[in-house]
Amino acid sequence: MGVKIAVMAEASVNNAAVQPFTWSALPSRVVFGRGAVQRVRDEVARLEKQRVLLVGGGTSTRDAFTRARDSLGDMLAGTVGGSTPHVPADVIDAAEATTRAVGADVLVSIGGGSATGLGKVLAFTCDLPLIAIPTTYSGSEMTAVWGRITDGRTHTAFDLRVLPRSVLYDPELCIGMPARLAAASGMNALAHCLEALWSSGANPMTTALAVEGGRRLVSGLQRVVDDPDDVDAHAENLIGACLAGVAMAQAGMGIHHRSTHVLGGGWNLPHAETHAILLARSTALVAPRAPQAMREASRIFDSDDIPNAVFTLLQRLRLPIGLAELNMPEDGLDEAARRIIAATHNDPLVPDEASVRQMLDDAYFGRRPRLDPG
Amino acid sequence: MGVKIAVMAEASVNNAAVQPFTWSALPSRVVFGRGAVQRVRDEVARLEKQRVLLVGGGTSTRDAFTRARDSLGDMLAGTVGGSTPHVPADVIDAAEATTRAVGADVLVSIGGGSATGLGKVLAFTCDLPLIAIPTTYSGSEMTAVWGRITDGRTHTAFDLRVLPRSVLYDPELCIGMPARLAAASGMNALAHCLEALWSSGANPMTTALAVEGGRRLVSGLQRVVDDPDDVDAHAENLIGACLAGVAMAQAGMGIHHRSTHVLGGGWNLPHAETHAILLARSTALVAPRAPQAMREASRIFDSDDIPNAVFTLLQRLRLPIGLAELNMPEDGLDEAARRIIAATHNDPLVPDEASVRQMLDDAYFGRRPRLDPG
Repeated sequence: MGVKIAVMAEASVNNAAVQPFTWSALPSRVVFGRGAVQRVRDEVARLEKQRVLLVGGGTSTRDAFTRARDSLGDMLAGTVGGSTPHVPADVIDAAEATTRAVGADVLVSIGGGSATGLGKVLAFTCDLPLIAIPTTYSGSEMTAVWGRITDGRTHTAFDLRVLPRSVLYDPELCIGMPARLAAASGMNALAHCLEALWSSGANPMTTALAVEGGRRLVSGLQRVVDDPDDVDAHAENLIGACLAGVAMAQAGMGIHHRSTHVLGGGWNLPHAETHAILLARSTALVAPRAPQAMREASRIFDSDDIPNAVFTLLQRLRLPIGLAELNMPEDGLDEAARRIIAATHNDPLVPDEASVRQMLDDAYFGRRPRLDPG
Repeated sequence: MGVKIAVMAEASVNNAAVQPFTWSALPSRVVFGRGAVQRVRDEVARLEKQRVLLVGGGTSTRDAFTRARDSLGDMLAGTVGGSTPHVPADVIDAAEATTRAVGADVLVSIGGGSATGLGKVLAFTCDLPLIAIPTTYSGSEMTAVWGRITDGRTHTAFDLRVLPRSVLYDPELCIGMPARLAAASGMNALAHCLEALWSSGANPMTTALAVEGGRRLVSGLQRVVDDPDDVDAHAENLIGACLAGVAMAQAGMGIHHRSTHVLGGGWNLPHAETHAILLARSTALVAPRAPQAMREASRIFDSDDIPNAVFTLLQRLRLPIGLAELNMPEDGLDEAARRIIAATHNDPLVPDEASVRQMLDDAYFGRRPRLDPG
C-alpha cells in the first residue's frame, strides 16, 4: 500500500501548477447521521424561531415529508408541496401566499433539488431563514444560488440569504429511493465535482473537496442501484453530494451546468437525467483544453480517459444514455447550441458553436463520447 | 497509474465508517498568488475602509512589512510591530493605544503567527475588521481562535470577529525565509493537518482538506529547506498551511495542540518548534486509539507508521528533535503532564497521566517515537 500511495502523491505534486486564485467559503452548517431528521426542532430553536413552513417535494419523498412533519410537532405552522424542477412562477406565488398566511418565521425544505429550490426562492422572496433536509443527492443545499423559470428560460442568481442555515443529512430518508432517481441525482452531484475541477474558480480547496466527493459517489452510486436499502451507500452518496455542492458553490459553473440549464429551461427536460446524459459529452468537449482537471479526475475514476469512464458509469447505473430518450426534439438542438454559446461567452474551454452542436448531437443519439479535436 | 489509483480508492471507501458528524464552515476569503501583497488596497476598499493600522512581526519579516507599507500608500494610518508568540498583555495594551490614537478603521497584519495573533487580539478588543498577510505557514489566519497569555497560561477563545475578512497569500514574501523557520512553521501546519484527522470534530470535509494540505507540506517543506528561494515550493507550503488552518478551524483541537499550548504558555517555549518536536510523540500517543485517522494519514506519508514518518521528516528538515534543546526544564515535565491532563479531560484518545508523562519524556530526550501500548 505504501509504495502505491507514494507514487500518487508524487504524481499529484509534480502536476500541480501553482496558479493565482481567489477562494471564498460559505458559512454552511451540516448535521449528518442516521436519524438526523429528528433533530430538526433543535435546529429551528438554534435560530430562535418557532413557526415552520414545511416545503415538500413530489410523491417520491412522501415518507420523508411525514417524518419531518412528525419531528416538528407543534412547531409546524403550515405546509406546501408538489414543486417541480426549476420552480415555475405559479408554484412560487401560491407558496408565498401560504407562507405569509400562516405567519411562518422559518422555512424547512425536505425532498430533492426541487423542494430545496422552492425553499430557496421562498427564503429570498419572504426573507426567511431556511433549513434544508435533502433526500436525494442534488447538492444544491450547499450553494447560495437560486433560480426560477421565466418565459421558458432558467434564471439563476447568487444571494447569501438563500444559503440554508443548517442542512440535515439523514441517510435513512434515502432508503428505498428508486434506483433511477438515485442514479440520476448522483450523476448530477458527480457533475458538480467534475465541473468544479475545470471551472474558472477552481482552486486547491475546491479540488480537494471535489475529488473526495467524486470518489465517494462513484463507489456509492454503484452500490445503491444494486441495493436501494444499503444505508451506508446512501450515507456515502449524501457525503459525496455535500462535498460536490460545496466544491461547486466555491468553484462556480461552466459549460456543463450552463448547457443543462439551457436544455432544462428551454425544453423542460428532467434536470438530473439531463445532467447525467450530458456529462460524458461535456467532459469530452473540455478535456483537450483542461489537462490538469483531467489528471485530478483520474483520482476519481479508475481510468485516465475520463469521458469514457463517465459514459461507462452512466451505462452501469442503467440510466438513459441519449437526450432522445428524454423526448428532447431533435430540431431544437440548433437553437440549444446557440443559447449555450450565448450563455458561455468568453469561456476558454468552449471552442465554438460547431463543437457545442456536435456535443449535443452525440448526447442526443447516446453515442460514446469522443474527444473534441480542439 | 490507473491500477494504483483504483487500489487507493477502494482502500479508502472500504475503511470509511459512516459516523454521524456536525460540520460548520467559516466564511473565509483567500487571495493567492505571486504579488498578492500589492492587492491589499483593493481588499481594504472592498471593506469600504480607508485608515489602516499595519501590524508587523519580528525582524525576520521586515522586508515583507516594508512591501505591505509601500503597497498601502496613503491608506496607512499607523504601524505596530515586534509581537512575540502568545501575545503578552503589555504588547496588547500598547498596540491598542496606537490603534485608537491613529483612528484606524481596519487592521492589516503581516508576518508569522505572532503578527496574525496580535492582529486578532486587536480585531477583538478594538472591534475592527482584519486583513491578514501571512509570511510563514502558521495557518492561524484561517481560524477564528485568538489567544493571549495571562499568568503564564495561554487562554484561547473562539470569536467570528477575529476571523480575517481576507487573507492574502503571496509566496514571494517567503523567498529567503530561514530554513529553520520554514521547517518549524511547516511542521506546525502539518500538526494542524494530523490533529484534524483525529480530533473529535473530524469529518469527511475536514479530512479531505487535511490530507491534501499534508501532502503539499510534506513535499514542499523538504524543497524549501534545501532551497529557500524556491518560490513554487513556498506556494505549495502556503496552500498547505491554508488547508491545514481550514481543517483545524473546522475539526477542532486535541491532545497535540493542548499540549503545545501548555508547554508554550507555561515555559515560554518557541511555538512552532514545540509543535514540531511534539508531533511525532503525540501521534504515537493517539495512534493505537485512532486507526481510521492513521489510515487517512498514510495518504500523506509514504508509510503506514505515521509517528515514525513524522520523526523522520523532523530529522530531514534539520529541526531540533528534543525539548531539551529548547531549554525546557526537565523538572517541569511532571507539572506539564498534570496541566495537559487537566486540559484534555474526557478526550478518549488520552489514556492517562502516565502516558502523557511518558510522551513528554520521549519528547524531552528526542527519542524516536514508540507506539503507546494503549
